[in-house]
Amino acid sequence: MTRSMNLLMFSGDYDKALAALILANTAREMNVDVTMFFAFWGLMLVRDPNKMTLEDKSAYEKMFSMMTPRGPAELPLSKMNFAGIGKSMLLEMMEEDDTPPLEAFLKGAQKKGVRFCGCKLSMEVMGLKKEEMIPELEVITAQDYLENALNSNMQLFI
Amino acid sequence: MTRSMNLLMFSGDYDKALAALILANTAREMNVDVTMFFAFWGLMLVRDPNKMTLEDKSAYEKMFSMMTPRGPAELPLSKMNFAGIGKSMLLEMMEEDDTPPLEAFLKGAQKKGVRFCGCKLSMEVMGLKKEEMIPELEVITAQDYLENALNSNMQLFI
Amino acid sequence: MTRSMNLLMFSGDYDKALAALILANTAREMNVDVTMFFAFWGLMLVRDPNKMTLEDKSAYEKMFSMMTPRGPAELPLSKMNFAGIGKSMLLEMMEEDDTPPLEAFLKGAQKKGVRFCGCKLSMEVMGLKKEEMIPELEVITAQDYLENALNSNMQLFI
Repeated sequence: MTRSMNLLMFSGDYDKALAALILANTAREMNVDVTMFFAFWGLMLVRDPNKMTLEDKSAYEKMFSMMTPRGPAELPLSKMNFAGIGKSMLLEMMEEDDTPPLEAFLKGAQKKGVRFCGCKLSMEVMGLKKEEMIPELEVITAQDYLENALNSNMQLFI
Repeated sequence: MTRSMNLLMFSGDYDKALAALILANTAREMNVDVTMFFAFWGLMLVRDPNKMTLEDKSAYEKMFSMMTPRGPAELPLSKMNFAGIGKSMLLEMMEEDDTPPLEAFLKGAQKKGVRFCGCKLSMEVMGLKKEEMIPELEVITAQDYLENALNSNMQLFI
Repeated sequence: MTRSMNLLMFSGDYDKALAALILANTAREMNVDVTMFFAFWGLMLVRDPNKMTLEDKSAYEKMFSMMTPRGPAELPLSKMNFAGIGKSMLLEMMEEDDTPPLEAFLKGAQKKGVRFCGCKLSMEVMGLKKEEMIPELEVITAQDYLENALNSNMQLFI
């Protein structure tokens, strides 16, 4: 029987997203089913950087769309971000070590068949439209998430 | 057999508490048993806003009681709080979308039979008394928590 | 059959490390197998405070080694750290309550047979050498972590 991992992506931090996507890619290489459920700040990771729209959004939703990160490259660090200096330092250290950036791990996960799900309620509250997100993203409810998570071998809140 | 979910509530952030309580309410509607274990900052969510006492507390405990959030409405955001501006913005967006505030989800969870547990050690260290907390709160040990978590279908650290 | 708990230690915060080590110690007293996997900021907790080396490190790695906490005593709080004032306050409250400091829980976990594992990739990126870490630390891959986590009764991301 296929084993499965469910990750609830809440935080929207570069370093936490990196950890999660390394786990997701590694799990797929081990033939483990992976579902990632993006809610709240986690949704910033699965925005398509080139597809922001302001149409059909309230004033708050427009402001929110513009103030928050668009896609993986813009996410801040959870610690020692120092207005981006800490993040540049981490990126340099990753490059010295031939570790690919977050965008590459995201693309890898898309190719390897990780299932990407967006939280319907969070998207409605934040005013994010399906067409602004990566094309793989399925929009599902909290109940769908729970059904999957309860049947998985492991679950993490990241 | 009844399925079960165990949530360790550590953070004390408004947005994380909202995510957790939406999951808890949804799980109860699916007839899943839910235990929430509040430790450290997570205890701020289950303080009764009208029942703070300073009696029988050390100077540090008094200071701590006064400096920390009392109940759900006072919790800050985990990100973009901006001294409360980011939080007001989120609350406005939730209202536009007819999403109830955190207090409503907390009341819903109380009505739907979510089990609320407080960490004995954290309460002792922070000087929080049982009578300052919501009446449903059982005070339990780390061992009680682990016994429940190990027997649950899923566990999250929030 | 022996029950097991797997903790992914990501954060490197004093309070979160305290919560995790209290759980780890309690679980061992209940005869539950415990594996702690330290990645990213979590590695700061398992640095040996007396064994920092700058040899064989790039300029970024040297800077990083010097700017980040060395061992349990130097970790900041996840909230209300206030440049260390909040942490001192918590330490005073713990002392008033006869709760041992983080270092004692770390030593307890080492004595009780908690398995300590460091993330190979994180250590390479951050330039941390095995000889700078506590002697118990095994260096393992993300795949080793997943194999252990998938077979555990509970998993938390801390």
